[in-house]
Amino acid sequence: MIIVLRPDVTQDQVDHILDEITKLDLRPHVSTGEERTIIGVIGEEDVIRTLPVEAYPGVENVIPILKPFKLVGREFKPANSVVKVGDVRIGGDAFTVAAGPCAVESREMTLRIAETVHGLGAKVLRGGAFKPRTSPYSFQGLGEEGLKYLAEARERTGMPVVTELMDPRHVPLFDEYADMVQIGARNMANFTLLKEAGKMQKPVLLKRGMMSTVKEFLLSAEYVCSEGNMNVVLCERGIRTFETETRNTLDISAVPVIKQLSHLPVFVDPSHAAGRDDIIESLSLAAVAAGADGIIVEVHPEPEHAKSDGAQALVPEQFAEMMHKMRAVAQAVGRKV
Amino acid sequence: MIIVLRPDVTQDQVDHILDEITKLDLRPHVSTGEERTIIGVIGEEDVIRTLPVEAYPGVENVIPILKPFKLVGREFKPANSVVKVGDVRIGGDAFTVAAGPCAVESREMTLRIAETVHGLGAKVLRGGAFKPRTSPYSFQGLGEEGLKYLAEARERTGMPVVTELMDPRHVPLFDEYADMVQIGARNMANFTLLKEAGKMQKPVLLKRGMMSTVKEFLLSAEYVCSEGNMNVVLCERGIRTFETETRNTLDISAVPVIKQLSHLPVFVDPSHAAGRDDIIESLSLAAVAAGADGIIVEVHPEPEHAKSDGAQALVPEQFAEMMHKMRAVAQAVGRKV
Amino acid sequence: MIIVLRPDVTQDQVDHILDEITKLDLRPHVSTGEERTIIGVIGEEDVIRTLPVEAYPGVENVIPILKPFKLVGREFKPANSVVKVGDVRIGGDAFTVAAGPCAVESREMTLRIAETVHGLGAKVLRGGAFKPRTSPYSFQGLGEEGLKYLAEARERTGMPVVTELMDPRHVPLFDEYADMVQIGARNMANFTLLKEAGKMQKPVLLKRGMMSTVKEFLLSAEYVCSEGNMNVVLCERGIRTFETETRNTLDISAVPVIKQLSHLPVFVDPSHAAGRDDIIESLSLAAVAAGADGIIVEVHPEPEHAKSDGAQALVPEQFAEMMHKMRAVAQAVGRKV
Amino acid sequence: MIIVLRPDVTQDQVDHILDEITKLDLRPHVSTGEERTIIGVIGEEDVIRTLPVEAYPGVENVIPILKPFKLVGREFKPANSVVKVGDVRIGGDAFTVAAGPCAVESREMTLRIAETVHGLGAKVLRGGAFKPRTSPYSFQGLGEEGLKYLAEARERTGMPVVTELMDPRHVPLFDEYADMVQIGARNMANFTLLKEAGKMQKPVLLKRGMMSTVKEFLLSAEYVCSEGNMNVVLCERGIRTFETETRNTLDISAVPVIKQLSHLPVFVDPSHAAGRDDIIESLSLAAVAAGADGIIVEVHPEPEHAKSDGAQALVPEQFAEMMHKMRAVAQAVGRKV
Repeated sequence: MIIVLRPDVTQDQVDHILDEITKLDLRPHVSTGEERTIIGVIGEEDVIRTLPVEAYPGVENVIPILKPFKLVGREFKPANSVVKVGDVRIGGDAFTVAAGPCAVESREMTLRIAETVHGLGAKVLRGGAFKPRTSPYSFQGLGEEGLKYLAEARERTGMPVVTELMDPRHVPLFDEYADMVQIGARNMANFTLLKEAGKMQKPVLLKRGMMSTVKEFLLSAEYVCSEGNMNVVLCERGIRTFETETRNTLDISAVPVIKQLSHLPVFVDPSHAAGRDDIIESLSLAAVAAGADGIIVEVHPEPEHAKSDGAQALVPEQFAEMMHKMRAVAQAVGRKV
Repeated sequence: MIIVLRPDVTQDQVDHILDEITKLDLRPHVSTGEERTIIGVIGEEDVIRTLPVEAYPGVENVIPILKPFKLVGREFKPANSVVKVGDVRIGGDAFTVAAGPCAVESREMTLRIAETVHGLGAKVLRGGAFKPRTSPYSFQGLGEEGLKYLAEARERTGMPVVTELMDPRHVPLFDEYADMVQIGARNMANFTLLKEAGKMQKPVLLKRGMMSTVKEFLLSAEYVCSEGNMNVVLCERGIRTFETETRNTLDISAVPVIKQLSHLPVFVDPSHAAGRDDIIESLSLAAVAAGADGIIVEVHPEPEHAKSDGAQALVPEQFAEMMHKMRAVAQAVGRKV
Repeated sequence: MIIVLRPDVTQDQVDHILDEITKLDLRPHVSTGEERTIIGVIGEEDVIRTLPVEAYPGVENVIPILKPFKLVGREFKPANSVVKVGDVRIGGDAFTVAAGPCAVESREMTLRIAETVHGLGAKVLRGGAFKPRTSPYSFQGLGEEGLKYLAEARERTGMPVVTELMDPRHVPLFDEYADMVQIGARNMANFTLLKEAGKMQKPVLLKRGMMSTVKEFLLSAEYVCSEGNMNVVLCERGIRTFETETRNTLDISAVPVIKQLSHLPVFVDPSHAAGRDDIIESLSLAAVAAGADGIIVEVHPEPEHAKSDGAQALVPEQFAEMMHKMRAVAQAVGRKV
Repeated sequence: MIIVLRPDVTQDQVDHILDEITKLDLRPHVSTGEERTIIGVIGEEDVIRTLPVEAYPGVENVIPILKPFKLVGREFKPANSVVKVGDVRIGGDAFTVAAGPCAVESREMTLRIAETVHGLGAKVLRGGAFKPRTSPYSFQGLGEEGLKYLAEARERTGMPVVTELMDPRHVPLFDEYADMVQIGARNMANFTLLKEAGKMQKPVLLKRGMMSTVKEFLLSAEYVCSEGNMNVVLCERGIRTFETETRNTLDISAVPVIKQLSHLPVFVDPSHAAGRDDIIESLSLAAVAAGADGIIVEVHPEPEHAKSDGAQALVPEQFAEMMHKMRAVAQAVGRKV
């Protein structure tokens, strides 16, 4: 930690800061320049963070040096992690495709979509039984009934199921029906929910909040890991910017950036990033090329009857063509869809 | 709702769209221009929203006309709402100041701060017993013990207490100890929590998410109201932008904008918007001048020992001077602190 | 400057960096922590900046300590600057109102608006003769003819004129007709134009770019000052964010933040921040309360016939009422409109 | 254009609006719903845009239907455009790589880099002779001398040269030395410069402003085209967001979005988007996969001696490896580097 002092700092203020630092068994190094004096603080990371140094008189600025996360960091674990979801291994050489409807709408439609995407090469089934909707008047999901349909689709196809948890009181339900627990973008900083997910024995798909930095995203993953669950897959799904051509702006750079900072696998969700079906193929190909470990994508045979986000669903023909192209790009970068 | 069709739309596609609209007892009006054909849809609002028209073949764009919220809207209730918190009336002629520590740290400090801010003119006591922290390794709050200290401070000073609810399982605790339930910025789109708050008999202070538009903010309030609890105070607390001089960017325009769209009272939280103590006075005065109904501000006599957000806390002397100036500006705009 | 080294840095890399620093007569201080080694560099500011240290092998991150600007900084000149525009002094105790049409449209309209705003208390006349328009097919301004009408309005009312310079080849025209040269938000980083403005003998109104940080804004002012022209008034006019209720998001915090960093006067442009007339009064009152030195606002008696930005123009009645309220708030904060 | 009327609009206001519309030979269609009345306006595009309808009494909102650009639009020219730069054809089946130093620093270094990138497969030489720098105290480029070195490098390697124009008064210089005129991100809305570029006989590389929407970007291209120069290549180079891990956020979605809206070729600049060398390969591969027509990338054999942006320059070894991988991905998507 670097403490930058104000130009008008007094010697008493400096002494007071040095005292407080030394009391915590930390070592301060003072460097006096022509325009500013700075204090470097060396020592145990967590102890340093407890000092509210910004609030000390005479302090202009405090600059952290160490990364705020630990368990999710590559310095903690240099090799790539592989997360197992059922029999599917996420994060190795394979590029994994999770596909399915935005929301679970009916038993028939769920089974139909599951069989379709399975036949076209998807390895994980996605589908929301509990849906976070901006308006209280929108379709909120089928709830437990939806989880049952997903479980039935898993029996039929063998694909493990990823579905979103919104309420800590639903943990027993998800223990029973889900193979992977999704924490949605809106709940990325719902720390209550993150802690619950961290106590579960299931792998977690953690989506990046739409206005969260990569560092905050990794700290949310740290919440899950610090409860003992290291099976986390991170998912970039677009951040909010001023651009309105797309629902969100896919931060494709986040893929290689996270790969450098963390050992956890990284997915991309092109559907929510785009909010429109016509550019999803381009974004998915970009995800493969940029080094992502997989995508999670929405497929619906009748988007115009979808109860949620129809405009961004691929029809099976689009999905089939996209899978074909993704295989070619994956091969070019040494991976396998 | 306006449906803009693609230049290459076919007559079959148009007919199909008109069919679907008519089936729902809605009335479509077709206007054919030289470059685009558009369909205006007239009829009952909620029905229109269930159509995923963006997903229909031949559709380029869909433009909503009606506002997506209802109970919180000024069209639903033209007169300003007044929300009662204990004996304090928020939203009338008075400009209400809620003040206190960021986090409840100890019994002594809580009582000391409560008495200080009460003596200087604050009407509501703020303080967090459960703290949403970006890092799992930061101080997470005293929990129930903190609620008890707040309740004791209320007994001493008579000030009602506002404190943040993070977990739906804590509702009974908040029923017992809190006078007003705060939903924090990170949980603005935690719809599970919003519904629980809507079922409570307590007024709600709903903070705007740092990544949320005013419309989404009002829809979150609609979640609370639609469960039967109309006692909602909205709080602008800064949005996330590219600027780094401040922790967030206070969207001062949101105050008059929300006042036009909604009848609910509007607060400003200058502390979290700024993230630094030295501009809080300016932001608070701006809030009064712009027409806010109150502020919620952090005060701590020893910021350098604060366990959370010390850098943005005012010391009592700063708070006293700010109260003095706020009174003058409030009088200039016809209000009373 | 602080150089944070990678955990895997080699001693050779460290030595190489120290060598390069020492060659420039700078003094490096090495601090070795458990997880990172850092090098503090002390010495003459400009020299340090020429080192592309981020590109050195073994370097993880480089953190500047000193502010990148100089002439515009409060450390360079602690007292507030006053900028004279004709007989008007901007930046002292007075709160200055510049008002007028968005674009100069005709001689008659220009004179009529000038007399109106002058009668209501405006001290400076604004109006665009050259207009930066997003579309090449929009009205681009009257050019030199417009400048002449503004000059005539100055003769009639005595108000000095501020108008926007877009082309370095127009400097002679502006030397002849303008009292204050405006650099628009879109040209804040047009360094060619900034240098020309710096060579002129006229005061400059520099608008903040809509996606520029405060630091970049001050560096643009530094471009003007470093050419010898210290008569710069800074103008916050809203930044671009995800919020769409307003055209831009007025960054009201920028007012006190800039006041701390710089001695230059600060204006607010509520018209372009809002993009709609109905909240301009609230924003203007907030500007006074937050400590701005003035506003620049659009007034048009017939907004529905305005050739540019009609939706954000105040009619004279609105302007009159706003002036009345601004006077009250100004008095409350110890200033005078 | 759709005009949404306020709920409290009067019949007189409606009649007035209809009158004004009809006067312009436009056809209004009124649709009366339960909560809002809307007026659809059909007719010649440019005429509609001259009406400042937002400013009419009784109007709540105005919604454009037609796209604001014309010459750059795919509706104007459905087939992809190919832009010739010297003998290089941009926008066909080939994926074009422009490479070179950020700034031209010396004759020797320019020739050396040119030969290196040429040998590795680059087709166009990039390099800045005039440099837009945030600080007036940074290296501002060699000016005309730099242009001469670039021209000499062209003679040696046969590669055409793209370099940035910052000042309309430099047009004759660029006519003499450059093969392609770059308009930088900071000048994307410098309409004076855009018009000059439109009058030149050289192809233009137009970079997206970091604060500009895709629509505004296309309107800036429209400025160039409307002066008669249709040889424009658009370049996505990252937009400004809250994320700080990268200098800007590469908006990879802009590639397919622009391809749908416009016939012009689209480049990606991974160097300025990233601001760091270690993720440039990932971004470049993503650009190929997403359908871009080329990249423009910074290469420097000694980044630690670069006078500008050393941290984001690739060394030749990195560039060689990236070219190798780009060839594989290009082949996978049916293109050729």
